[in-house]
Order: sequence, then structure tokens, then C-alpha cells
Amino acid sequence: MTGYSAPLKDLEFLFGKFGLGSSLQSLPPFSEVGSDYLSPIFEEAGKFAGEVLAPINHSGDQQGSTIENGVVRTPEGWKEAYDTFVEGGWCGLPFDEDIGGMALPWTVATAVGEMWHASNMSWGLWPLLTQGAIEAVHAHGSDDLKRLFLPKLVSGEWTGTMNLTEPQAGSDLALLKTKAVRDGEKYRIHGQKIFITYGEQDLSENICHLVLARLPDAPPGSRGISLFLVPKRIVDQDGNIGEHNDLRCVSIEHKMGIHGSPTCVMAYGDNDGAIGYLIGEEHKGLACMFTMMNNARLTVGLQGLAIAERAYQQARAYARDRIQGIAPGADGKGPIVRHPDVRRMLLTMRSTIEAMRALILDTMVALDTSKHHEDEAARTYAHRRVDLLTPVIKGWLTDQAVNVTSIGVQIHGGMGFIEETGAAQHFRDARILPIYEGTNGIQAADLVGRKILRDDGAAVWEYLDELNSLINGLNAISDPDIAEIRKHLAISIDTLESAIDWLLSEGKQDDAAAQAASTPLLTLFGITAGGAMMARMAKCAYETLKNGDPGIDQAFMQQKVITARFFAENILSTAPGLLPSICDGHNTVMRLADEDL
Amino acid sequence: MTGYSAPLKDLEFLFGKFGLGSSLQSLPPFSEVGSDYLSPIFEEAGKFAGEVLAPINHSGDQQGSTIENGVVRTPEGWKEAYDTFVEGGWCGLPFDEDIGGMALPWTVATAVGEMWHASNMSWGLWPLLTQGAIEAVHAHGSDDLKRLFLPKLVSGEWTGTMNLTEPQAGSDLALLKTKAVRDGEKYRIHGQKIFITYGEQDLSENICHLVLARLPDAPPGSRGISLFLVPKRIVDQDGNIGEHNDLRCVSIEHKMGIHGSPTCVMAYGDNDGAIGYLIGEEHKGLACMFTMMNNARLTVGLQGLAIAERAYQQARAYARDRIQGIAPGADGKGPIVRHPDVRRMLLTMRSTIEAMRALILDTMVALDTSKHHEDEAARTYAHRRVDLLTPVIKGWLTDQAVNVTSIGVQIHGGMGFIEETGAAQHFRDARILPIYEGTNGIQAADLVGRKILRDDGAAVWEYLDELNSLINGLNAISDPDIAEIRKHLAISIDTLESAIDWLLSEGKQDDAAAQAASTPLLTLFGITAGGAMMARMAKCAYETLKNGDPGIDQAFMQQKVITARFFAENILSTAPGLLPSICDGHNTVMRLADEDL
Repeated sequence: MTGYSAPLKDLEFLFGKFGLGSSLQSLPPFSEVGSDYLSPIFEEAGKFAGEVLAPINHSGDQQGSTIENGVVRTPEGWKEAYDTFVEGGWCGLPFDEDIGGMALPWTVATAVGEMWHASNMSWGLWPLLTQGAIEAVHAHGSDDLKRLFLPKLVSGEWTGTMNLTEPQAGSDLALLKTKAVRDGEKYRIHGQKIFITYGEQDLSENICHLVLARLPDAPPGSRGISLFLVPKRIVDQDGNIGEHNDLRCVSIEHKMGIHGSPTCVMAYGDNDGAIGYLIGEEHKGLACMFTMMNNARLTVGLQGLAIAERAYQQARAYARDRIQGIAPGADGKGPIVRHPDVRRMLLTMRSTIEAMRALILDTMVALDTSKHHEDEAARTYAHRRVDLLTPVIKGWLTDQAVNVTSIGVQIHGGMGFIEETGAAQHFRDARILPIYEGTNGIQAADLVGRKILRDDGAAVWEYLDELNSLINGLNAISDPDIAEIRKHLAISIDTLESAIDWLLSEGKQDDAAAQAASTPLLTLFGITAGGAMMARMAKCAYETLKNGDPGIDQAFMQQKVITARFFAENILSTAPGLLPSICDGHNTVMRLADEDL
Repeated sequence: MTGYSAPLKDLEFLFGKFGLGSSLQSLPPFSEVGSDYLSPIFEEAGKFAGEVLAPINHSGDQQGSTIENGVVRTPEGWKEAYDTFVEGGWCGLPFDEDIGGMALPWTVATAVGEMWHASNMSWGLWPLLTQGAIEAVHAHGSDDLKRLFLPKLVSGEWTGTMNLTEPQAGSDLALLKTKAVRDGEKYRIHGQKIFITYGEQDLSENICHLVLARLPDAPPGSRGISLFLVPKRIVDQDGNIGEHNDLRCVSIEHKMGIHGSPTCVMAYGDNDGAIGYLIGEEHKGLACMFTMMNNARLTVGLQGLAIAERAYQQARAYARDRIQGIAPGADGKGPIVRHPDVRRMLLTMRSTIEAMRALILDTMVALDTSKHHEDEAARTYAHRRVDLLTPVIKGWLTDQAVNVTSIGVQIHGGMGFIEETGAAQHFRDARILPIYEGTNGIQAADLVGRKILRDDGAAVWEYLDELNSLINGLNAISDPDIAEIRKHLAISIDTLESAIDWLLSEGKQDDAAAQAASTPLLTLFGITAGGAMMARMAKCAYETLKNGDPGIDQAFMQQKVITARFFAENILSTAPGLLPSICDGHNTVMRLADEDL
């Protein structure tokens, strides 16, 4: 089993030379957040991830969480890691100081979050959901709810969950049946929820369940759903924990991966009804839940990056170690890392990961900008960008996670299929990512419908204008690597523009065609967005080398240019091949009868 | 859990109208093998697969094979299914009558084999390996070996295994260390082998291990390897089973998938040495093993088709059943099969499967032709075709199996990640396919090196000529569906020609570049070959409809045209996007230092 090292050099580059740090510092609350401030945080987080979380990742997979008489036990080491994490205050990184947070940018929380998910994705799900719960309560909760619950959630002493799904209501939340009945200022909740991550555990003394339910007088469909905070144990007005609420974990799922994370079936209100507190307004719970979900979608994209990075580190170590065959030009047997086909696999993993990381961190800078920029127009612009890219980040990064972890298995050959090696776990774990927090089909529908068609392409053209400016910037550079990168990026942008043109004309007239095109369009968008980030990084690395600044890691900068060119020639170059499936793929999609499919 | 239905209608089409049957009938030994003869065989096999093998697939995965004190136990139902299979004589389907076989074409054995692997891939591995052992012994064994072992192997009463891998020798067999020492007419074998599928089991009374080992005076490397038949129990000259040979199963692997199939670590010669019998000549074992391996590679490609078909049947059933959301143009909630994005996923699965099936069966006709055609030139031509397409079938079909089973999981949403549903098993099982019997990287190297560069493109240009004739045939048809299919196929063929041109010029001069290009080239080849089969089927279906033959299933024929057009516009259309990675991808592959990767 290979350990885990946090990608500190990449973060140094991205927050340093590449400029994410200075963008953050231009936002008033973060003027102090320079490299000197961040480096120790990244190092400390990397240490915790590598030394505490990574060593229990494989054992956690093998042991899994278990349930006995309603008591859920997490794997060995889970609770100790939890305690250390809470002690370190990591949970509150991006939250306001008045609720006990560190008030750091989301960009920084994301960089650090990659380390939790890479070292132990199953474990990392509890802070992921807890942070989502904090955001929803913070944005929509009453003062009383905030006072009683936020500090404990922000410290991580209590955890949060997200209760949406019911057996008959998955992607279609309008079908949910869980009932809420008014009881004075409180509500009583009755119903069953499934797929509740960390719905029960032995880590924290309390769990704050955020539950979607329907009031008796609610309008039908998704406009009749309300959001409630339903604590595992009742909290009195002084914040003391009292009796158990009327809710329980019925069972946990036997899953393909993320075995360490208990996925619970939760029963609410077996007796008098579970006590719940309204978040936001009655019947407007879905909007509140989306506050939580948008954050969670970005973080699931982050998990995709993280698990891919972990798989890469493991595959690279194996490829350097495994002696097999004679590489072209070699004298004798050598490690498989010298074989061109293995190098192609490793570079596919690595360059995809670099694109993913840059894309999500750049988007998180936009998120921070949308919250903290002095200028309202700049905030709005950044907000549109985050909205546009959220489904791309969730969808493309998680699809790539499955692909990259699959390559990781492949590099190991037969050993990759043996569970002891650990490569298989990453592949199994990664497979949940295109599914939860809105399947990637839902992401594609969101991209096409809400994010492109709804504003008639305003946000996407704005984005494409920026990409075209990037092309202009690359034109000015005379270098064979940059020229190749520029060429493939320009083709890819043209392709995406054609796809958007089609969507805004033909797709707009034909709902089924637009939906049929949605997934390949999301893929094309992801490749192009990732390729643009690679080009921006290559440009920065090239210029840094050119400037010859002292103290620069020249080899690192050269590698950035090389991996960007690899990405351009091997991955970005596949973009034009996606256009027919977008513009013409729908021709046949609806032609077979349901029963003939 | 969805059951399994054999694809009888597709087989009827392929062996009937499409012409595989008449091609087989033109071969002297198979003149009687018409539809009337084959249909009952397919039906009977489908019944066995659906009623006996499919019901124990999921339970077999959950139970797994186990080992205790060296005794391996297969899952419940495995032995009963084995007995029934042996009784039915299924194992001997493609073998000569003089050794107890049915002397049917390999094409038919392949069509039937799909059913074993689709219904229960883990179970189906024992006949797969046994058939390979039969071929090797039949082609290279002494008369005595043939007399003593073949009838029992052909009947299936004894099973065969393939012992290649050692801990230090995987893809690179030259590194193997297992020793063989002459002992009169026999040999004594000492060494450890890993990844031995069905190396020990509780199904048959004897197991014939085909073992690669090295004699003391063997030249180093892969030219010093000999092949031995090492029976689990010694067989006397009258064929009676006697004492246990000096070999044992040390342990079985804990794998990501194919849990029902025991993957054994085998120890040979703990005491006096395991008694082995030479197959073929000393030091020429690798060539003999390749007889077995080429067959096995095609059959692993077949497993890819099979598991994809199973995943499709399950996903389709779920999509028809699961009510969620309102599809475009619908009045209210309906099954998800009506959603365009879900249909796109289902059609991707289905059309890929149709391409896979047609491609492998068409290639098996070439295999039968290479063995039985009256004309030597025709035999040689067909042999070249099989050689050329073997790595494509192994590589592309198994890559697609991972992709298709992954889509199968995705269609199930959250339920796909839950093991009880069964979709996850197909995905886990499928992941071994790109690895075993030569990783897909090895297949790509074989395609580029042995199959294209070695004969300077003779076989591949021959093949491309045929594809261009197909384009000419399609030109004659004036129909919008066929026109779209033709268009994308023509582009794809052009792209493949450009790739081959590059390989035979630049790639020939630069070994590393050729190897770096090998995997995307294999993918391009697979897509084009699959697309050509889809086009041939569409042409046949179109002409059948046009001819208006009475008794034709019109809806079925229309579906063939539609799925072929779907494939053309959604999958074949991605072919041009692969060219840069072939011709330019190598530019960066060798540029990073090993330690910087």
C-alpha cells in the first residue's frame, strides 16, 4: 500500500506564480492570506492526511462500518482521527469567525479538502456533509437555530447529514412522501429516508439531520417541500443535549465502495414523530437545500480530483518499482515506468488531475469573489461563473475519476484486481461519484437547461469570450509547445461554440434533442475548460521560465508545459469528435419504442 | 435481480439473413449446419444459461470460492451446474468427433459461449480454460497424452488450467523461474505460479495444469521455456486416476470481482517434484502456449461482450420499471426509459454490444474458414484476418465492457452502487477483462508490432480494402439513415488509414512513438471495425426490408438500422478525435524523467 503525499508543490504553484493567491488577496477579508500564511496550513493538513487518514483508508475499506442493534460502528481509527480533526478546528476553515470558524477562503478549504478526500474518501464524507449543513443553517436558519447549532457544527463536535432520497424519490424529489406536521413552534417528522451518509455513527455526540418533508397543506410536487433540522438528540435552550429524538438508523447498505462510510436507512417518527425545526420558509425547502447541494456538488467534484490523485500516486509508485520487459532503447529489463504505453497511462492520469485541480480551485476563487468582492458587478459576474461551472465540475471531474482510477488499476496489471494492493478500492470508491449529489445525467440537464438555455447563453458566451482572450494571449508566444497547446485549445473552443450555437437554436426548439445532447456537451465543456486551465498554467510556467526569476524550480515549470502539451495532444484533441453526438446524436435517441429498447 | 435471456433473435439474424450461417455452410465439414440445425442448440444453451447459470451468479459473487486446509469450495450450485453442463456435452462443442467432440464450428461455440459468460462469467471460466488446454494438447501433445487426456477434457469430466504467471513474471514471461528437470520420459516440476484460475476446485475429479517451466539447460529468456501437462492426480496408461501429484493450492486471492472463480496460488514440487509431461518440444513451450492463448484472448473478448449484454438487460429492465420525472412531451411521471439521457445511455450500451457481437462472430467465421476452407489461399487469408483482429477483439471489447457495465451502474442511480441490485457485480467482474490473458497494453503492442509493422501493413491494408468496398456498397443505397452511417464510417476508415500510414512511416522509425500510439490506435481500430459491422448489418436489414420478404420481423430490421445510425453518430463519430493522440501523442510521452512522472 502506497502512502499519500499532499500535492504541496502544485498548490504552491497555483496559489503563487499562477495567481490564485493574489486574486484572493484582492478580496477585502483575505488581504493577509498570502503564501506565507497558507503554506503552513497546507503542510499541516498534508501531514494530518498522510499520517492519520491515509493509513486507515484500506483497513477502513476492509472492515467497513457495521450495525448491530441500531448501533453503527465506524472502522478502527475513525474516531481517533475525528477527535484530532475537531481539535485542529479543520471543520470550520471557511466559516465566519463569529460562529467559530477560521474565515479562510473556500478556495483554501478546497485545497485542504482535496487532502482529506485523497487520503480517505470514506472518512472525508462527514466533514463534507457537515459543511453543507452549516451553509444551509447559516443562510436560512432562524437566529435561535444558528445560536444553538452552528457553533457545534462549525467546531465539528456535531455532524450534519442531508436527507433527501426516499425509495420512490431519487432524482425526482417531487415524489417524496416524508410528512411534517406542525406542533407549536416545532414540527413532527414521519417517514423513511435512504442513502443517508453518516446518518448514524459513533463519532459525535449529536447529529443534525437536514430533512426534506412535506406539510399536510403543501402544494403537490417540488414546490411543496420544506426543510427541517432534526437533531439526533434534542438540544435545550442552553445548548445542552437531552433525550433521543424519535429517529433511528434501520440498516446500513452493503455497497460496492466507500465501505468505511455508513450509508443509512433512517426512520423518522416511529412513535410520536421526530421533533424538527423549520429551516427557511414552509414549502421553500428545496431552495434551502440547494444552498447545501451546490456546495456539495462542487465538493463531490473535488472528491473526484482527490481519488484520482491518490490512484495516481499509487500507480506511479508501482510503475517505478515493477521490473518487467525491456523498454525501447534500453539495455535490459527495467521498471515499467519506462514503457511508452505505461507512461501514456501515467501522463493521462497526471495531466487530467492537473486540469481538474486547476479548474476547481479557479472556480473556488470565483466563489470567494462572488461572496467578497467589493464591486457588486464583479460579485454577480463571479456568481454566474460558479453557477455555470458547478455541473461541469461535478460531472466531468467525477467521470474522469472513474476513468483515472480505472487506469490506476490497469497499470498494476493482475495485482490491480487483488484487493490487498489497494488500487481496486480507489476504483470502487470512485464509482459513487458520478451518482450521488445529483447523477451526472442530472448535472448535464442542469448545464443545458438552467445554466445555458435559461439565460440564452449569456453566462456561457461570457466564459467563451474569456477563453478566446486566452487564445489571443497564447498567440503572442512563439514556442513549439505552446503553439501545439494553443492549436488544440482553439479547435476545442470552436467546437464548444458550435455546440452552444446548436443548443441555442435547434436544441432550444426541441427539448428531447437538448437532453439527448446534454451529456456529450458536458464532456466537451469539461475537456475544454480543463484544457484552458492547462493552457493557462503552461503560459504561466513558460513566462516564469522566460523571466528567469531566481529561486524558480525550473524542472517543475518545464513539466507543467510538457503535461499541458500532453493533455492538448491526447485529451483536448478528442473534443471535435464529440460534436456529432451533440448535434446529431438525438436523431435516433427517440426512435425506438420503449419496449424495443 | 434481473434474469438472463439469450439474444436468440440477434443470433437468428446474424446466422440467418446476415449470412454467417451460409458462410459456415460453404465449409465442407459444416454443410449441414443450417438455421434449423442451430436454432435448437441456441435455444437449449439459452435455457441452461438462463435457468441454471444465471440464478447462481449473484449468490456466487456474494459467497465466493473459499479455501480451508487446501480444499477449495466453489459456491452453491456450481457443482450441480458443472455436472449438468458435462452431461450435456457442451464442453466438446467445437472439437473433433474422434476425441468426443461435436465438431461444430467455433463460431457456434462462441455464440453459445456468450451465454455462459453472460449468465455467469465466474463460472464460465472453467470451460474457457479447459477448451484452451484441449487446443494446446490437441495441437502439440504426443499421441499418448492425447489418448489419455483429451477425451476426459473434451467431455469436461476433467478441467484444464493455464499456469503462466509468477510473482516476478507477468507480462514478461521471460522472467519465469519455475524449474523442470528430466526424469526418464517424464519431468519433475518445481515452482510457484500465481493467478491460476480454477487451479483447485471441487468440480472435477482431475485437473490438467498446463505449466510453463524452464529446463536446467534452457537458453535464457523466452526461448528457454517449455510447456508441461501436470495433472492434479496421476493417470496410469489405462486412464485410471491414481495418487495425488506433488502440487497444491496454497491460497486463493481476494479479488475485486469474479468472486465465484477461485484464483489460486499453486505450489509445484514441495517434495519430489510434480510429475509433468512435455507438450511440444523442449524450449518451445511459449509457441505451444500461444495456441491456447490466442483462443483465450478471443474468448476474453467474448466475455466482454457477454458481461456487457448482461449489464444491458439489467439496466433496461430497471429503466422500464423505475418511475421518476416527466420526460419531454409526456403528461406526467413515467419510467426513466423515456428520458432522452437514459435512452442515450441504453442505446450506447446496446449499439456497442451489437457491434461487439457481430465483430467477434464474423471473426470466428474467419477462424473456422482458416481451418476448413477447401482453398489454401482462402485459409491463409482468413488466418491473417484472425491474427490481425485478435488483439482488437481482446482489447476493444474488454475496454467497452468496462464502459458499458459502468453505464449499467449509472442507469440504476444510487441503487447501482448497492450490491444487492447486481449491477455493481457486472462492473466489478468486467474490470478483470482488460487485464488477464495479456493486458490491453500488451494487445495494443501486439497489434502495432506483430500484426501491422511486421508484415508492413499487408494484412491491415487487405482489411481496409474490404472496408472501402463496403463503403462503395453503401454508396449505392439512397436512404437518409444509411447515408449517415456511410458518412461516419468513411471518415473513420480515412482516419484509420491515416493512422496506419503514420505507423508504417514515422512509427516504424521510432519504436517508442509506435508504442505510445498503440493504445489509441487499437481504440480507433476497434471503433472502426465495430462501425463497419454495424454498417453491414444495417445494409442487410435495409435490403431485407426493401425486398419485403414475407415472414420478416420488420420492427427488428428497422431497429438494426436505427441502432447502427446511433452508433455512427454517437460512437463512430469520435474516431477522428483519436488521430492526434496517435500521430502526436508521443511527442511528450518520453520527455519527463522517470522520477518526475
